[in-house]
Amino acid sequence: MKRVYLDHAAATPLDTRAKEAMELYFTTQYGNAGGLYEEGRRVKEALANARNVVARILGAHEDEIIFTSGGTESDNLAIFGVARSAAHQEIFSRLTLPRSAWGSSDASQKFPDMRPHIVTTTFEHHAVLGPCEQLEKDGFNVTYLDVGPDGIVNPQDVQNTLCPETILVSIMYANNEIGTIQPIAEIGKIIKEFRARKTQNLYPYFHTDACQAAGYLDINVNNLGVDFMTINAAKMYGPKGAGALYRRNGVPLKAQIIGGGQEMRLRGGTENVPLIVGFARALEIAQERKAEENKRLTDLRDYFIAEIQKRIPKTVLNGHPTKRLPNNVNVSILDIEGEALVLYLDAKGISFSTGSACTSESLDPSHVILALGKPYEFAHSSMRFTLGRSTTKEDIDYVLSVLPQTVEWLRALSPISVDINAKSMSRPEAFAGQGMRAKAKSKHYK
Amino acid sequence: MKRVYLDHAAATPLDTRAKEAMELYFTTQYGNAGGLYEEGRRVKEALANARNVVARILGAHEDEIIFTSGGTESDNLAIFGVARSAAHQEIFSRLTLPRSAWGSSDASQKFPDMRPHIVTTTFEHHAVLGPCEQLEKDGFNVTYLDVGPDGIVNPQDVQNTLCPETILVSIMYANNEIGTIQPIAEIGKIIKEFRARKTQNLYPYFHTDACQAAGYLDINVNNLGVDFMTINAAKMYGPKGAGALYRRNGVPLKAQIIGGGQEMRLRGGTENVPLIVGFARALEIAQERKAEENKRLTDLRDYFIAEIQKRIPKTVLNGHPTKRLPNNVNVSILDIEGEALVLYLDAKGISFSTGSACTSESLDPSHVILALGKPYEFAHSSMRFTLGRSTTKEDIDYVLSVLPQTVEWLRALSPISVDINAKSMSRPEAFAGQGMRAKAKSKHYK
Repeated sequence: MKRVYLDHAAATPLDTRAKEAMELYFTTQYGNAGGLYEEGRRVKEALANARNVVARILGAHEDEIIFTSGGTESDNLAIFGVARSAAHQEIFSRLTLPRSAWGSSDASQKFPDMRPHIVTTTFEHHAVLGPCEQLEKDGFNVTYLDVGPDGIVNPQDVQNTLCPETILVSIMYANNEIGTIQPIAEIGKIIKEFRARKTQNLYPYFHTDACQAAGYLDINVNNLGVDFMTINAAKMYGPKGAGALYRRNGVPLKAQIIGGGQEMRLRGGTENVPLIVGFARALEIAQERKAEENKRLTDLRDYFIAEIQKRIPKTVLNGHPTKRLPNNVNVSILDIEGEALVLYLDAKGISFSTGSACTSESLDPSHVILALGKPYEFAHSSMRFTLGRSTTKEDIDYVLSVLPQTVEWLRALSPISVDINAKSMSRPEAFAGQGMRAKAKSKHYK
Repeated sequence: MKRVYLDHAAATPLDTRAKEAMELYFTTQYGNAGGLYEEGRRVKEALANARNVVARILGAHEDEIIFTSGGTESDNLAIFGVARSAAHQEIFSRLTLPRSAWGSSDASQKFPDMRPHIVTTTFEHHAVLGPCEQLEKDGFNVTYLDVGPDGIVNPQDVQNTLCPETILVSIMYANNEIGTIQPIAEIGKIIKEFRARKTQNLYPYFHTDACQAAGYLDINVNNLGVDFMTINAAKMYGPKGAGALYRRNGVPLKAQIIGGGQEMRLRGGTENVPLIVGFARALEIAQERKAEENKRLTDLRDYFIAEIQKRIPKTVLNGHPTKRLPNNVNVSILDIEGEALVLYLDAKGISFSTGSACTSESLDPSHVILALGKPYEFAHSSMRFTLGRSTTKEDIDYVLSVLPQTVEWLRALSPISVDINAKSMSRPEAFAGQGMRAKAKSKHYK
């Protein structure tokens, strides 16, 4: 059976041209880029070329590109790296202790405003939220901005939350679940203006996770006004295990993986040259074909969304209708459970996901859909279809030929029936009994 | 010109069988292991199989294997992960503040012995030393054990340094520069016995960096008595960018890269399945051919060492003559500069390194040779030849036909002449003038 793979936000096949570019460095030019002899020099040159390609596309200098093992590592490096660098600075040094470290003293009351402060949003990837939550435990203040019901951050909200202690703002470029595109350039300007009014230091810096965006959008760091940007090969037809963090020159960052001084002493470990070469090539290809491919995908996407809404009652598009990635379709198909639909369509040769693949180990509903202010059931029934280079209109038509009847069948079995205008959870006990009822009272289980 | 590559400790070519095992997962089975549909499940299965292979070879359980991006990350995870986990425990929570955090109070005098304590050696890889130095700045105590002149740690020294506050001992299995094999099992026993006498907690845990050892030695974690072990694909004919940390079940470890909960929540980021599959296959192959290949390499190694010492005056073998990796030859060829010899032999088609490739960006002399108690000049003139699967007796004979005359020629140009029995630096000013003379007085520039 032919399969229709619609989970390109989770993983893409490796582009054969990127693969070809990598080949040489597996078995022939396998030297360590640190070697002074010919095998090392050649590999070092390949590394420099790859760095040049990435830098050029980002409008950056070569020494602003730190190669890492992927998007999660890059996000962690930006957030922990800025925070832990700030924590060692005089103005903050007394103030970044683990909460437990304050003991029974009233020191935490004494300097309530002088803890370093980070701004992010409630619908970031876990690679950003996780480090922020860890830093909260370590004594940092973190503001998690709500996003609008259309899945877009209001730049004014960012402005309102900045304070003298703010060291970092981290807002994703395009959301990994609903594909909404954030006004990064506008936020960049706000941060720059805020910074210009400060005299004591140059905080806050601005990080954006562009893992999902980099294959489709303009990623020139100057146009965006960012100081850090995460990109990732695996989401743009490059190899898994390669990513980069752009860091604007001069911005303080503490290495998080320490070793032999590679990557300008900001990321230790033998440079993974085959993957880095493939990453650069994949980025190059994605950016070259962007305009044409985006148009094709946008047409397919809009057709798919319109047909779903036409053919299946009680479906809600999650995120903004146009300010979204050209390949992203995310709908809540009410009264059915995402996972059940994934499994039924899988049997019919269709692959897609509910929530993001990254958290499929957990049964928790998508924090992204909850962040939109939607009730629990909307998250539980959210479906993400992400199109790719191989996706054709025939593929979409096949899905459309199968989806409505499967939904109908699953709905007939469903114990729940949600009002499409519901503002809060309707029957928590249908999901997990007492425990869920208690959870439902909390802010995040509306 | 045929090249003779003798830097297998820096990088190995990818075994074609490991490469073949990877192929399928680049362009065909490219799913995200978190996907619930067929593409995801197949990849998840491949990941589970790879984990099973690695676990079996280590004598471990599957859930004790954490896949990472390589040796440096694994070392960092073990050290930071144990330290930062301990720092959050009640007994240490007040005591792991940055030194600056103590301010002008006398708290640091108040609890001088209750800071968590780490034991390592002066000749570890920078991926271990770097994190230890960072933790010192963060308020941990670290003991750097000296090694014997033969490059072997005395287990009694480890025993003598253990105290109730010791949380971690990290000692490499085989040194990356001089290949000496440490008595890991013996040290493991000492630590276990020490731990058995404690009642309050189960510290210290024992970590070994087995990056260089894993292709050649027994890496059964139970035989070795370790709680953590770092291994790395790239040093054993597997792909660059894949490694693992073994963590004994139940041992507290804090994730250092936080994301979607992969790797038992201990290492976030989409699993790099192609590389992990190649890693497992490479480890399998290396362990299978170990006995035979070790014998072949040991013969070649000993022949090479004997001939160098016979044909070139003023050469000193660094490290133990037999307790060393079968592929490691490290000699100080006095009165010449390592880097010059690397470049001259490179022109004759021979690749090897001075110090380790990982630190070639720096002109600092090898900290490993200095750790043996040798004067600066011995480190400056240390040469590491590491043999590999493709190395033949003809290769070694070719090197032997070229090496003596090149050394003679370089010596004729050399401004220095060191006494082979020298115990301290002879003419610091020959290296870098005033600055070096000052350095020469410090402990590490004997």
